[in-house]
Amino acid sequence: MNLLAIPARLSCAEATFEAQFKARLHWSADTDAQIEQRVADILADVQQRGDAAVLDYTARFDGLNAASMAELELTQAELKAAFESIPAAQREALQAAARRVRTYHEAQKKASGESWSYRDEDGTLLGQKVTPLDRVGIYVPGGKAAYPSSVLMNAIPAHVAGVGEIIMVVPTPKGEKNALVLAAAYVAGVTRAFTIGGAQAVAALAYGTATVPKVDKITGPGNAYVASAKKRVFGTVGIDMIAGPSEILVLADGTTPADWVAMDLFSQAEHDELAQSILLCPDAAYIDAVQEAINRLLPAMPRAAIIAKSLSDRGALILTRSMEEACEISNRIAPEHLEVSSRDPHRWEPLLRHAGAIFLGAYTSESLGDYCAGPNHVLPTSGTARFSSPLGVYDFQKRSSLIEVSEAGAQVLGKIAAELAYGEGLQAHARAAEMRLNTVPDMRKPQ
Amino acid sequence: MNLLAIPARLSCAEATFEAQFKARLHWSADTDAQIEQRVADILADVQQRGDAAVLDYTARFDGLNAASMAELELTQAELKAAFESIPAAQREALQAAARRVRTYHEAQKKASGESWSYRDEDGTLLGQKVTPLDRVGIYVPGGKAAYPSSVLMNAIPAHVAGVGEIIMVVPTPKGEKNALVLAAAYVAGVTRAFTIGGAQAVAALAYGTATVPKVDKITGPGNAYVASAKKRVFGTVGIDMIAGPSEILVLADGTTPADWVAMDLFSQAEHDELAQSILLCPDAAYIDAVQEAINRLLPAMPRAAIIAKSLSDRGALILTRSMEEACEISNRIAPEHLEVSSRDPHRWEPLLRHAGAIFLGAYTSESLGDYCAGPNHVLPTSGTARFSSPLGVYDFQKRSSLIEVSEAGAQVLGKIAAELAYGEGLQAHARAAEMRLNTVPDMRKPQ
Repeated sequence: MNLLAIPARLSCAEATFEAQFKARLHWSADTDAQIEQRVADILADVQQRGDAAVLDYTARFDGLNAASMAELELTQAELKAAFESIPAAQREALQAAARRVRTYHEAQKKASGESWSYRDEDGTLLGQKVTPLDRVGIYVPGGKAAYPSSVLMNAIPAHVAGVGEIIMVVPTPKGEKNALVLAAAYVAGVTRAFTIGGAQAVAALAYGTATVPKVDKITGPGNAYVASAKKRVFGTVGIDMIAGPSEILVLADGTTPADWVAMDLFSQAEHDELAQSILLCPDAAYIDAVQEAINRLLPAMPRAAIIAKSLSDRGALILTRSMEEACEISNRIAPEHLEVSSRDPHRWEPLLRHAGAIFLGAYTSESLGDYCAGPNHVLPTSGTARFSSPLGVYDFQKRSSLIEVSEAGAQVLGKIAAELAYGEGLQAHARAAEMRLNTVPDMRKPQ
Repeated sequence: MNLLAIPARLSCAEATFEAQFKARLHWSADTDAQIEQRVADILADVQQRGDAAVLDYTARFDGLNAASMAELELTQAELKAAFESIPAAQREALQAAARRVRTYHEAQKKASGESWSYRDEDGTLLGQKVTPLDRVGIYVPGGKAAYPSSVLMNAIPAHVAGVGEIIMVVPTPKGEKNALVLAAAYVAGVTRAFTIGGAQAVAALAYGTATVPKVDKITGPGNAYVASAKKRVFGTVGIDMIAGPSEILVLADGTTPADWVAMDLFSQAEHDELAQSILLCPDAAYIDAVQEAINRLLPAMPRAAIIAKSLSDRGALILTRSMEEACEISNRIAPEHLEVSSRDPHRWEPLLRHAGAIFLGAYTSESLGDYCAGPNHVLPTSGTARFSSPLGVYDFQKRSSLIEVSEAGAQVLGKIAAELAYGEGLQAHARAAEMRLNTVPDMRKPQ
């Protein structure tokens, strides 16, 4: 097999750049109308028939026949047994990764997830109380994209937030269980786990069934059916985001060994054929060196076919006129993963406005972040880093405003509120504010 | 006209309570299939035809004929003129409210919206960079529910976050403009404003047209068409939440004048007939006093008919066995607005887990919070406070993880990552990590 991985070669200086760049980036988040209709039907059916519907779809789509939902629940003993069954090196790696992910998310909670309040000059208290969600569902894909690391990345922030119950769903087509996924659920402290997947699992979590408890929020990636189902139940429950294909953008000044960068591009491309790997660099000779490394390293890769197709169809090596221009293009892409493979990454970092995660310096391969550096690997894809954030503790918390107006404060605020309320034609709002004014003649004080 | 406002009278001690309670609370967020289809068509049309489609729908739905989109843009001079045209008392009230809302959101940004980082024992840097969105759209309803205060509540947090451009859309049916809404846009510092609304305005903001710039996120409430459109463009842009009818829950220990509580219930009920006002109280005599106050105060209210229908159809006065039980029921409801009308509100506040905003003590009427206390009045409705938060500075920011692995850190992390990557069958991930290990014989160092 003679595989070629030839990413598109673009140059910012060419007149055709803009059109080529747009064509390469194009990816549509639009859901297929047929998938949407099937998902709507499945959701309605699960909402109505509960467990029976989930069992039917699990038999039909996953080839997994069970007489009752109880058979599809994984016990804590099974999770523990899976953990004990895997090699010691894997056990230790899982635990080390979990520790680092926990430490990072604890720092995140401390930095941005605590309650706060202050009193103004009238003694009025204003603030915000931060509380964990009661119960969340995490969707873990099964089959070819079964990633134990995703179990850690979803469950640990929920734990750190203080979520009471974490319900995991993971499809096991034909009953095939992934021991590493189950072991990760054990390490992460998942409360309950069910071997169901697809739109039916999302529906079970969103509406609840006799067996599957209704959750407050559903997180985790899935296929087009899962994405469509999550979007549809949004509002009934919270969801994290709609994930598209994964992407990496490497911004290189040419000081990192070309082999390292080639392998980093591979590590994205090996996910699936739709994954996107892009290199931005102002040095043409370095781009040549990376292409040479790609050619040389590819044959030894077990997933060479996927890598070749992904790089050839969606990859790009882009020659920029400067590092500054590379940063600008990066902002237009708003990549999920952004490696700043430079001797001086802190020079460029302030110029980078939109990215899910920024990997600074030659030693920070994306794969270290994917597994164990600490930050979350569930990141906004397809340019959604323009408006959304990595999965985090904040996704498993919600905030309530706190207001305690003092008697003195009510005298000031009451007049402002009444003026605006009358202006909006909401007289009861105005009267409620005015009743708290001491100037009202028949004022009755609270006891 | 002899109006009666008779909320349902429930008692937790009765055997029928659970069924009655559920029936009263029932509200479905499901969108009508016909509305969904029409919205899908409008979105597709605007995506394809841009300005021309927006002009057509604006003529058809708002009875507003314009030859070009430019005619539907409000200039800064118009916004300023509107501000100067309103009475001085309204101008001052708007400015005072804006000041307080700004102060609160600045505190919010400081408490939870700043970048942070730390270094671990290997010198590896881990953190999160917080940046504002580039451009947001705020949807301001027109017609009967045109609320200038909502302009402040959407635009000010965006401003405090540091958003570069704030694009406002507000339908003006038959060309009728609300001077107070325009004045609020002036005070809040809206960048550009268009007199368009409905699904077509959401589409214009989400996809961009020749005239309306594409935004990164759309916030603000709207009718069923707007809600369906926001849900559908979610993923292409960010959205805040899907708002349902507004609700208030008053948790009373009987020490607040009954008239105050009655008026607070009215202030929610006057919004619209679907609004919900609920009182929870362990004192039957106090509930009688509130019903008496309702009967006495209703006839003088200009919006008495709406109040009467809302309270009779959806309101409830619920006798609980204790304040603790009242708190539990409140948590089940997860109300948008929660008044703790008690002599000792801080005793109950820790028991309250789910609410959009908590108003503590007799002087804190919801209406003070609606206009000018400082916290946002855009709050999660219909029980979604279980998983979502008030609109805030955080809605106009996004986060990027920062990782800079040191050479020493790469030695530790590389082994963990490689172990897990091989376990997941992702060999390029493993190789990328291993290449950074100093033990690799042909190790080439970064320059």
